[in-house]
Amino acid sequence: MHVVEYRPERHEFAWTFGGVPPVRRVAPGTCLRLWTEDAFSGRLTSTSDRPSAVLDMSEVNPQTGPFHVEGAEPGDTLAVHLVELTPARDWGASTLIPLFGALSTTDRTALLHEPLPERTWIYQLDRAAGTVLFEATSADLRLELPCNPMLGTVGVAPPGREVRSSLVPDVFGGNMDTPEMRAGATCYLQVNVPGALFSVGDGHYRQGEGESCGTAVEGAMDVVLIVELIKNAPVPAWPRIETDTHYVVVGSSRPLEDAWRASQVGMIAWLGELYGLDRLDAYQLLTQAAESPLANVVDTNYSAVTKIAKALLPAAAAYGGVHRHLREQARSL
Amino acid sequence: MHVVEYRPERHEFAWTFGGVPPVRRVAPGTCLRLWTEDAFSGRLTSTSDRPSAVLDMSEVNPQTGPFHVEGAEPGDTLAVHLVELTPARDWGASTLIPLFGALSTTDRTALLHEPLPERTWIYQLDRAAGTVLFEATSADLRLELPCNPMLGTVGVAPPGREVRSSLVPDVFGGNMDTPEMRAGATCYLQVNVPGALFSVGDGHYRQGEGESCGTAVEGAMDVVLIVELIKNAPVPAWPRIETDTHYVVVGSSRPLEDAWRASQVGMIAWLGELYGLDRLDAYQLLTQAAESPLANVVDTNYSAVTKIAKALLPAAAAYGGVHRHLREQARSL
Amino acid sequence: MHVVEYRPERHEFAWTFGGVPPVRRVAPGTCLRLWTEDAFSGRLTSTSDRPSAVLDMSEVNPQTGPFHVEGAEPGDTLAVHLVELTPARDWGASTLIPLFGALSTTDRTALLHEPLPERTWIYQLDRAAGTVLFEATSADLRLELPCNPMLGTVGVAPPGREVRSSLVPDVFGGNMDTPEMRAGATCYLQVNVPGALFSVGDGHYRQGEGESCGTAVEGAMDVVLIVELIKNAPVPAWPRIETDTHYVVVGSSRPLEDAWRASQVGMIAWLGELYGLDRLDAYQLLTQAAESPLANVVDTNYSAVTKIAKALLPAAAAYGGVHRHLREQARSL
Amino acid sequence: MHVVEYRPERHEFAWTFGGVPPVRRVAPGTCLRLWTEDAFSGRLTSTSDRPSAVLDMSEVNPQTGPFHVEGAEPGDTLAVHLVELTPARDWGASTLIPLFGALSTTDRTALLHEPLPERTWIYQLDRAAGTVLFEATSADLRLELPCNPMLGTVGVAPPGREVRSSLVPDVFGGNMDTPEMRAGATCYLQVNVPGALFSVGDGHYRQGEGESCGTAVEGAMDVVLIVELIKNAPVPAWPRIETDTHYVVVGSSRPLEDAWRASQVGMIAWLGELYGLDRLDAYQLLTQAAESPLANVVDTNYSAVTKIAKALLPAAAAYGGVHRHLREQARSL
Repeated sequence: MHVVEYRPERHEFAWTFGGVPPVRRVAPGTCLRLWTEDAFSGRLTSTSDRPSAVLDMSEVNPQTGPFHVEGAEPGDTLAVHLVELTPARDWGASTLIPLFGALSTTDRTALLHEPLPERTWIYQLDRAAGTVLFEATSADLRLELPCNPMLGTVGVAPPGREVRSSLVPDVFGGNMDTPEMRAGATCYLQVNVPGALFSVGDGHYRQGEGESCGTAVEGAMDVVLIVELIKNAPVPAWPRIETDTHYVVVGSSRPLEDAWRASQVGMIAWLGELYGLDRLDAYQLLTQAAESPLANVVDTNYSAVTKIAKALLPAAAAYGGVHRHLREQARSL
Repeated sequence: MHVVEYRPERHEFAWTFGGVPPVRRVAPGTCLRLWTEDAFSGRLTSTSDRPSAVLDMSEVNPQTGPFHVEGAEPGDTLAVHLVELTPARDWGASTLIPLFGALSTTDRTALLHEPLPERTWIYQLDRAAGTVLFEATSADLRLELPCNPMLGTVGVAPPGREVRSSLVPDVFGGNMDTPEMRAGATCYLQVNVPGALFSVGDGHYRQGEGESCGTAVEGAMDVVLIVELIKNAPVPAWPRIETDTHYVVVGSSRPLEDAWRASQVGMIAWLGELYGLDRLDAYQLLTQAAESPLANVVDTNYSAVTKIAKALLPAAAAYGGVHRHLREQARSL
Repeated sequence: MHVVEYRPERHEFAWTFGGVPPVRRVAPGTCLRLWTEDAFSGRLTSTSDRPSAVLDMSEVNPQTGPFHVEGAEPGDTLAVHLVELTPARDWGASTLIPLFGALSTTDRTALLHEPLPERTWIYQLDRAAGTVLFEATSADLRLELPCNPMLGTVGVAPPGREVRSSLVPDVFGGNMDTPEMRAGATCYLQVNVPGALFSVGDGHYRQGEGESCGTAVEGAMDVVLIVELIKNAPVPAWPRIETDTHYVVVGSSRPLEDAWRASQVGMIAWLGELYGLDRLDAYQLLTQAAESPLANVVDTNYSAVTKIAKALLPAAAAYGGVHRHLREQARSL
Repeated sequence: MHVVEYRPERHEFAWTFGGVPPVRRVAPGTCLRLWTEDAFSGRLTSTSDRPSAVLDMSEVNPQTGPFHVEGAEPGDTLAVHLVELTPARDWGASTLIPLFGALSTTDRTALLHEPLPERTWIYQLDRAAGTVLFEATSADLRLELPCNPMLGTVGVAPPGREVRSSLVPDVFGGNMDTPEMRAGATCYLQVNVPGALFSVGDGHYRQGEGESCGTAVEGAMDVVLIVELIKNAPVPAWPRIETDTHYVVVGSSRPLEDAWRASQVGMIAWLGELYGLDRLDAYQLLTQAAESPLANVVDTNYSAVTKIAKALLPAAAAYGGVHRHLREQARSL
C-alpha cells in the first residue's frame, strides 16, 4: 500500500471545509500517516491559562488537509478508514470558553446572563494504564478515566459552493464530535466537489456523549488512515460510519430533534439498501433496535447519532464490503 | 417484607397521574406484585388490526395504581425499586398510529402531509431464548431480537394541582419511555402530594432509544417492585435512576435540547451531592464521562437521559445507600 | 340579555383549567360582568417588592371562574366575546421572577448561570390619557405608553381528563398571552367537557409581542363578556379569535416553530372552511397574506399567532356570523 | 451624489455571500441603480411549470453584486439604504418546491412522508392599482392583494473565512426574508472583510410574515439604494434595520426561539446604546413595547424580528443620525 506522511506546519493548517487548496493529491487506497494539532491550536497548556486571554478564536480547530482524492467526483462516496489514533502528547486540555457550551448562554441561545467563569483542566495521560487523569479544583477528587481516542472532525468540501468553518458539522461531516469516530471506524461521506478535499482534526483523548461544556480532552493526535473511493454510490446526504460491530448515521442540525430525525431517516434508507425493507418496516425495526447516543449539543449544528448493532441484523456487505476490505488492509500495515 | 398483590380489572385502570383516588395504601418497604396491561389496553392483537379502527385513544397507556405511600409528604423522595419485570403474554405488539411518531407529522409538528400508512407488527416471545421475533412485511426478513423488559411509565402525582395524561413525561416521571427503567433499577421521584400516589404501566418487551415510531414492543407485564421513602431528601426536580452500574437522570421537555439540558443540570447537581464538586468541576467531569442515550422523541414532552458509569467514579452511597439496601431486600424475596 | 355579575373572593380563585367545580351556571347568550385579580394575586405593589420574597408561586395567575355553560357538550364550540376590558386599579406591576423569562435560564432551558437580578416596575395608569408610565431605574427615562388592555388567559377545561395549571397555554386556550385578546374579540374554543367550564384572568394593561421577561403590565381588570355556544361545530383543536378586522389562530407548543406551525395549519383549515380552498391554495394564500406576531415565548408552552386581515379577503360569515351578532349584542348593553 | 448603474448578465450572478470577487468598487455615499433577477433565476413563468422540472437548485436566489465599499474594514458598520424597490416585470411567481417549506418535511425536519404535490401560482401585477392578483386553483377565488415590494436578501461577506449560500440568513444578513426590508429602510450590517462585499437580491412583490410555503411572490426588481459607511461603530453582530417609524433587529438561527432571542438581545443592546438603559430596564421596556413579527420559518436558519415604534420612544439619533441623512439624500435623487 502506498503510504503518505504529512505533518502540517502551523501556517499550513486549514480552518475551513472547502475554500482551501489541497496539500497533497492521493490515489484511492492510499494510507496517510498524519499529525493533527489540538482544537486550541496548542495554546492552552496550563490550568492557569484562561481561554479569553490565550486563545485566538479565529484560529481554533485546525485541520490537517485537505487532501485531493484522485478521481473523486460528485456522485461518488468517500470512505475514510481510521486505522490508528494515538495521542501525540502526554496531556490533553479542556476548558470553559465564555459564551460557549450546552449549559451556557451563547450567541444563539442569547440570554442576559453574564458569561460563566473560565476554568481550565489539564489531563495527564498514562500511556501504560491507558487513562487520562481528571483533577478537580473544588474538591479533593482525582479520577483516572479511560483514554478513548477519537477525532472530533472528519469532513469534505461542502456542496453548493459553500465554505464552512471547521467548527461546523453538517452533511459534509465536519465537526460532528461523535465518540463513534475512533480507530477501526470507516466514515462514508458524499463527494461534493472534484477530489472530495477531505481533512481531519480535533483529536479527543476522551469525550462524553453530548460534549456538554464544548471541549473534550483535547489533544494533538497521530492519525493513520486509509482513504478509499466508491464510484457512483452516493450516500443519501448524511455521514455514515461503519465499525466491526455497528452501522451508524450522524445527523447535524438544530433543534436537536431535527439532527436526530436526519440520522433516523438516514438509517432507514441504509436498512432499505441492505435488506430490501420498505420505509415502514425499516421504521419499525429501527424503533426497536436503534441506539441513539448524542454526539454534540454545542456546535453551530448539533449532532445526533443513530446506530444499530450488526449482531442484531443478518450479515450484509455495505458498499460491497469495503469496510471489511479496509480492516484487512489496515492489518497489513 | 410485606407483600401486596394487585391486578386491576379493566375498570380500575388509571389514565392520569394525579386526579385518581388510590387503589391501595402501602407502607414504605412494601413489596408490590402487580400486573400491567399493555399501552393499547390489549386491543391490538393481530397484524391485520389497524389502530384507527381498534384503538380508543381516550383509553391508551393504562396505569396500575395509584398507590398511596403512607407518610409520604412533599419534600420527601420516593424510591421505586424494580425487582422483576416478566412478560405476562407470549407476544407483544407495535404499530404506526396515524399522526403520531417522531418521523410523522403530528398535532404539534403540524405539516400538510397525509398521515403515514397504518401497519401493525406482532412479536412472538420465545421465553427460553429470551427473544422477540421481528417479522417484516415488505421483505423476507425475520429477526430474533433480545427481549429486554422495561416499564415505559413510572410516575407520581404532579405538583401544582395538575392532573396529567399517562402519555406525558415530566418532572413527576410518567411516560419517560427510557430503556433504563428495567429490573434492578431504583427510580427516585420527588413527592408532590401527600401519599405520593405513584403508579406504573406501559410494559415494553423491547425498545430502541428514541422510540422512533412511537410504540415499542408493547406487552402486558408482571411487575415486582419495592417502594421506599426517603424523608426530607428531595431530588432536585427531575427523576433519577440508580442501577448497580450507573447513575441516571431523565429530563423531559421540548425542544429535545432542553430535555437533555435538564438531565445534564440534574446530573451536575447529583455529582455535587455525591462528591462535593462545584458546578464547574461537575460540568467538566460530566462532559468527559457522561453517556447521553435518548429515551423518547415522540411523547408530549421528549425525554433525554444523562448517565454516568459508577465504575468511572469513586464509591458513594446515594441517599444513604438505599439502592444497595433495596437490592438486598429484593434478593430475599 | 341576561347579565350575571361575579367578583370572586380570594378563596374562590381557580388555579387550574379543569379540576374545579363551576362557580356559576350560565345559559348561552348570557352577559358576564366579572372582576379578575392580577397574575401576582395582588401581592406585588411596590418597586421594592422582590418576587422571591412576596410571591407565593403556588398562587399565581388566579382565574375567575369556571363557568358552566348550559348545554355545552364535547363537539361544540364555545364563543367568548370580550365586550369591555377596563383596568380595575390605577397601577399595574411587572417584575423579573428568578429563573423565569425568555432571556433567562429556566427549569427547562436549564443552564448553569446564577438567576438574573430581581427588579420590579410599577406603572401608573393615566385614565384620561389612556397611558401607563414606564419609569426606568438605571437612567432618567420616563415613557408614557398606550394602555392596551387584554386578557392573558382565556380557557376551558382540557381534553383527556387533564387538569392544567393556569400558567399553561395549549389546545384548551389558557395562558396564551396574546395581545389579540382585547375588547371586541371573539374567542372560539373547542368544548372538551360538559359545560365547557371556561374561566378568564391575567389582565394586562399593556404587553409587547413575546412577553419577553415573562410579566406584562399586570393588573386587576373589570371584564364584560358575552358567552355563546355553537352546537356541533367544532373548531379543529387550536383556539381561534375573530375581530372586526382579522381572523386569528393561536398555536401553543415547543419549540416555537411547532407552536407557529400549529397556528398556520389551523388557519389553513379555517380558510378552507370559509372559502372552499384546498390545503395547497390555502397554504399559498397564507404565505402571502398572513401576519405572524408572537404571543409569548416564556410559558410552559410558547404561543404563536397567525392572523389575516379581513380586508384582504372576500366577505364571509364564520360560524354563521356569530361574531357580528355578538358585536351587536354588545352594543345593546 | 455619485450614481452607479449595474445590471448583471446571467453569468454575473453571485450565488454566495463571500467567495466571489466584487463586480464594482464604490465609495461610501454612492447611489446604486441595480436590477435583481427573481429567486427562480427567471425559470418559472407559468402555472404549468413544475419546480422539479424547470428549476436548477444550484442556481436559485441569484444575487446582484458583490460591491466592494472603499475603506470598509472589520469593526465598521455598513449602512444600506433602500431608496426605491420597483417591480421589473408585470408578474411574479410563487410555487411549492418539493421537500421545502415550513409545513413540509425537509432535509432537516426529516420525516417519512412523500413530498407534497407541486403547484405554481402566477400573480399579475396591476401597477396602477398597486396590487398583485392571487388566483386559486381549487376554487373560484381571485384576490387583489397590495403589492408591497421588499428584498428577501441583503448581506455582506460572512466572518470566519466562510462562504455561505445565498439561501442562508445569519449574522451577515443574507436571506432574512423580512417584509421590513422595503423602500425607506436602512439596513446596518457588521463589516467582516475589507470592502464589506455586499450584495442584494430576492425581490418579493409581496410576502406574508413567516413565508410559510417557502416562496413569496417572487419577481425581478429595480433597486435604487445608497451605501454608507460608519467607521469604528460595530453593530453587535445581528443585522439592524431603521425606518422612519421603527427600530428593528433580525436574528437568524434554529430553533425559532433562538432566532427570536438573538433579535431580542440585539434590541436590548440597541436600547442601551440609545438611552443609557441597563440590560434589565431595557428588558422590561422591550417586554411591554416590542412587536415580534416573524420573517421566515423556512430557510436554513429561521429569521425572527424584534421591532419598536419610534413613536413610543424619545427622539434619538442612531449612528449619528445616518438614517435621516440618507433619507434626505434619497429625496435629492
